[in-house]
Amino acid sequence: MVTGLGARFDSIVEAVGPLCVGIDPSADTLVSLGLADTADGALEFARTITAAATSRVGIVKPQVAYFERFGSVGIAALETVILESREAGLAVIADAKRGDIGSTMQGYSDAWLADGPLQSDALTVNPYQGFEALEPAFSRAASVGATVFVLCATSNTDANDLQGASLAGSSLPAIVARYAKEYSGDASTVGVVVGATRDLAEAGLTAEDLAGLLVLAPGFGAQGASLTDLREIFGTATPRVIPSVSRSVVRSGLASVANSIDEHLQELGL
Amino acid sequence: MVTGLGARFDSIVEAVGPLCVGIDPSADTLVSLGLADTADGALEFARTITAAATSRVGIVKPQVAYFERFGSVGIAALETVILESREAGLAVIADAKRGDIGSTMQGYSDAWLADGPLQSDALTVNPYQGFEALEPAFSRAASVGATVFVLCATSNTDANDLQGASLAGSSLPAIVARYAKEYSGDASTVGVVVGATRDLAEAGLTAEDLAGLLVLAPGFGAQGASLTDLREIFGTATPRVIPSVSRSVVRSGLASVANSIDEHLQELGL
Repeated sequence: MVTGLGARFDSIVEAVGPLCVGIDPSADTLVSLGLADTADGALEFARTITAAATSRVGIVKPQVAYFERFGSVGIAALETVILESREAGLAVIADAKRGDIGSTMQGYSDAWLADGPLQSDALTVNPYQGFEALEPAFSRAASVGATVFVLCATSNTDANDLQGASLAGSSLPAIVARYAKEYSGDASTVGVVVGATRDLAEAGLTAEDLAGLLVLAPGFGAQGASLTDLREIFGTATPRVIPSVSRSVVRSGLASVANSIDEHLQELGL
Repeated sequence: MVTGLGARFDSIVEAVGPLCVGIDPSADTLVSLGLADTADGALEFARTITAAATSRVGIVKPQVAYFERFGSVGIAALETVILESREAGLAVIADAKRGDIGSTMQGYSDAWLADGPLQSDALTVNPYQGFEALEPAFSRAASVGATVFVLCATSNTDANDLQGASLAGSSLPAIVARYAKEYSGDASTVGVVVGATRDLAEAGLTAEDLAGLLVLAPGFGAQGASLTDLREIFGTATPRVIPSVSRSVVRSGLASVANSIDEHLQELGL
């Protein structure tokens, strides 16, 4: 059954555009909004965002760490968030940044991309152990139309501690983009994560390296990049970029999430 | 409160040696042992290993992916495994390979290294986003005596797809080892993961790069490295290496786990 983001991206863009709304119930955010810093508080937070996101955007991205910090009750809350979001017609990107090898990577694929309580339409993963290591996730994604987004160039200022390394003249981000294209084929099975505040040139990347790939781009809104600059940042890669906003949609309180999303859509010219 | 592995490593080695027993309830393993491929089956599997490990070794390492694949009920089973293992006096390394930045990395630290249902004595993490990104985990580990093991040189044959890259003449694994030493100080707050079947030279590493660091070394037993070769593999770094065995301890069935562990201890000369 085709359920995933890769298979639905074009129709999502046609319907509502590419904007993704993050669901980030950090302790600071929950407390600042007057919610309990518990799994129940995280669920209440997420439901407010999902309700505002429904029909305005096509994609939400729960940040798994903020649920996992409560242990199994947090993961149970996340299951509800994923299920209700998908039932509302939203594609869910599980931002889990998982990565391992062989049967262990298969375990993560079973968790996030197979029929089960956490099944999502896309998953973020980490390439440090190589691309063949991620193959169980790619295979599973291909079979359900989902997308695996591989960390490529991240937006933190010290990212070049490691990402500044190179192999045979290519930067690590360029290597990740090349492998992603090789594994993705035409079905958008594999995409990349590129932070919007990261200078592409400084990461050893060109827009051409990203062209054709689905690009998940966090860093808009509160993290500093403006959606009005989307094309300036991503150039020819822009048509397949999924810009993601998180903290900015709750900045004015939970009652204003819908308005904040509308403002972001206007910044995108939608 | 000092609870972690870093603070207890020397006393563990003195009492029972450095061997770590992995808890890897993969689907294949559970089925081959006649157990249900469910969270309950994983728990039953884990309890058998913990019982055999208690008093024989000082460290166990549950592989989080194999519990996460069942969603929240799997994580609940893992909570029980961690709690019961720690109550039995075992130090628990949560093999989760988490990695993110800022408040998100703080979320993972809250999950695995703070007072809560998943609190462990050590956590494996992924360095792709840089070392400053992992700082929330390092700080937390320092405050409780725990250890954060950073992926360094992994054992899969394609690891050099990315780990073969270099920066200013250093391989990625050498860079990871250098940062780990910088952040670890004298308290073994930060260690590294080096696969026992990985050729150190091919990874651009020397034993000297690892000297003084706690080194978690999977890959012994079923994965191909022999514990009798521990010193040959790790040279001068050997005194702080934690060799880990997983599949080999259940190879002869659940009734033989204790015997299999005893055989491994003999291979280590213990």
